[in-house]
Amino acid sequence: MGVEKVTRFNSALNNAKRIDSFLLSRLKGNPIALYKAASYLIEHGGKRLRPYLVLKSCELLGGTTRQAIPAAAAIEMVHNFTLIHDDIMDNDEVRHGVPTVHTKFGLPVGILAGDLLFSKAFETISESMDSKGVGLLLISTLSRACSDVCEGQVLDISMAQSKTIPTEPQYIKMIEKKTSSLFVASCAMGAISANTTESDVNRLSAYGKNLGIAFQIIDDLIGVIGDPKVTKKPVGNDIREGKKSLPILLAIKLAQGREKRVIFDAFGNSLASKKEVEEAVGVISSLGIEKTIRKKASYHLNMASESISRYDNPPRKDLLSLLDFVAERSL
Amino acid sequence: MGVEKVTRFNSALNNAKRIDSFLLSRLKGNPIALYKAASYLIEHGGKRLRPYLVLKSCELLGGTTRQAIPAAAAIEMVHNFTLIHDDIMDNDEVRHGVPTVHTKFGLPVGILAGDLLFSKAFETISESMDSKGVGLLLISTLSRACSDVCEGQVLDISMAQSKTIPTEPQYIKMIEKKTSSLFVASCAMGAISANTTESDVNRLSAYGKNLGIAFQIIDDLIGVIGDPKVTKKPVGNDIREGKKSLPILLAIKLAQGREKRVIFDAFGNSLASKKEVEEAVGVISSLGIEKTIRKKASYHLNMASESISRYDNPPRKDLLSLLDFVAERSL
Repeated sequence: MGVEKVTRFNSALNNAKRIDSFLLSRLKGNPIALYKAASYLIEHGGKRLRPYLVLKSCELLGGTTRQAIPAAAAIEMVHNFTLIHDDIMDNDEVRHGVPTVHTKFGLPVGILAGDLLFSKAFETISESMDSKGVGLLLISTLSRACSDVCEGQVLDISMAQSKTIPTEPQYIKMIEKKTSSLFVASCAMGAISANTTESDVNRLSAYGKNLGIAFQIIDDLIGVIGDPKVTKKPVGNDIREGKKSLPILLAIKLAQGREKRVIFDAFGNSLASKKEVEEAVGVISSLGIEKTIRKKASYHLNMASESISRYDNPPRKDLLSLLDFVAERSL
Repeated sequence: MGVEKVTRFNSALNNAKRIDSFLLSRLKGNPIALYKAASYLIEHGGKRLRPYLVLKSCELLGGTTRQAIPAAAAIEMVHNFTLIHDDIMDNDEVRHGVPTVHTKFGLPVGILAGDLLFSKAFETISESMDSKGVGLLLISTLSRACSDVCEGQVLDISMAQSKTIPTEPQYIKMIEKKTSSLFVASCAMGAISANTTESDVNRLSAYGKNLGIAFQIIDDLIGVIGDPKVTKKPVGNDIREGKKSLPILLAIKLAQGREKRVIFDAFGNSLASKKEVEEAVGVISSLGIEKTIRKKASYHLNMASESISRYDNPPRKDLLSLLDFVAERSL
């Protein structure tokens, strides 16, 4: 990724952070403990990738930043709601380098902080939109995406609990629901905020869908063979946790005899030694997984790029830079 | 409560059950485990009190049942969402005589079933309303009520954790947020669905608010001195659990010397014997708490009644019967 592109992308992301004052102003109230818990993760990090998508999609179609801000804030609230409840379900204790919400504030307040962000997202849209039609369309888009995320989470849990290894289409379907649906909603809501045509909304949705799939595929690659210094997680974290993600699916398919044994000795084995996990990472890397996965990601990134090929303005360049950023995320 | 009134009230409640087919049709989907968990409590009981309020409020103001059904279904979804998450927070294992959702389906699916009901509520309204203005007003009313419920829950948790006994106004503020806000939303959403004036919405909201407070006050009375055969919970359940509800507040204020000791020996003491709890119930009953609380409930029921005094049609009679039903709920 060229220096110019990186600069453009970073300055654009900083732009998305400008929604923070609106976002945080919607999360003030009493009891303070609840509102502190609800805004805790937002105040401690996050790239604001989804708000960025809302803003850029809106601008791409001729809308203003102002028009897009309520939807941008709402999607970030929903994203944080899913993170908080996720951490509870996964028993995770750290996120963005700080304690998870339920670890810091207790389980009940953790659940309620997530629920509050959920309702605040809908409150924010319903109270901020001048056009009733646009407002209601945003609500139906966002609520359907939330239902999809719930469905995707349960698919993920079922996959984890099942004794069989899922097929690639099953895995893709799961990440489409679990991850991609909020990317789709972000882009669609940006388009809707610009008060544009259904065809525009569909094109932006296609962009978001393929971006989301590529993003998750690369994320899962990093989870398996990523550098612990970059991931800030133990080496081969997803192998030890037995996460049935695409790199594992592919590795198990390709591995032979001893290789297979090495992978399965570490896979989902909380007692595996660091050496055993490292050996499994080594085997998986040697199978050429990275190249295959980057190729699959590229396929989706190209589809995303094509979806917005008819537009020609600076926001399009930003959306294309984002695709490059995802493609070139370092391991 | 006269036989005629009981009959009218029961047949009216059965009427509210007619929303079930619409409600359950909105909770079909995949993965089946998720949708089964989300509809589990709805299929196993519940009085549909909140949908009833939506329907009657709408009819009172000249609207049709058809107009009110999306809001009625949505409020029941939200109510069930709060029950599912409540049971997780309270570690409760049984509700309506069946296992709670997280006990039956596991904690992660329990959390997600609640989240799904939440998003389905907003999805249902946004996809079912012909008038965009009415739809968006329903969304803002419902989402604000959901935020209030979250706030009320955290107030409740803080009260439980605090070493001091709350004042009566603190308790009332808590139940207004935690319980009453969904009653307010039900009545307001019924009025909004009828596409009526803001004054009508305000009057119905006042009815719902006072009904909700009276309902919770009586509920808390039952929790302390209710007959275990009726409550289906151990005798003096809320005493043992140390719930700082109005009857306890009043009892602690009135009790003297030995009486106070008997109450505090059982209050919040999970190791208290059945005899000790029964003794505390006896002391509290002897202090004349029931009369005081019924009087306070009556005050709110009268306020509710007055709020709808200007209307004169059969739905008003139903709404008044409901007030009688709450006033005369047996211990």
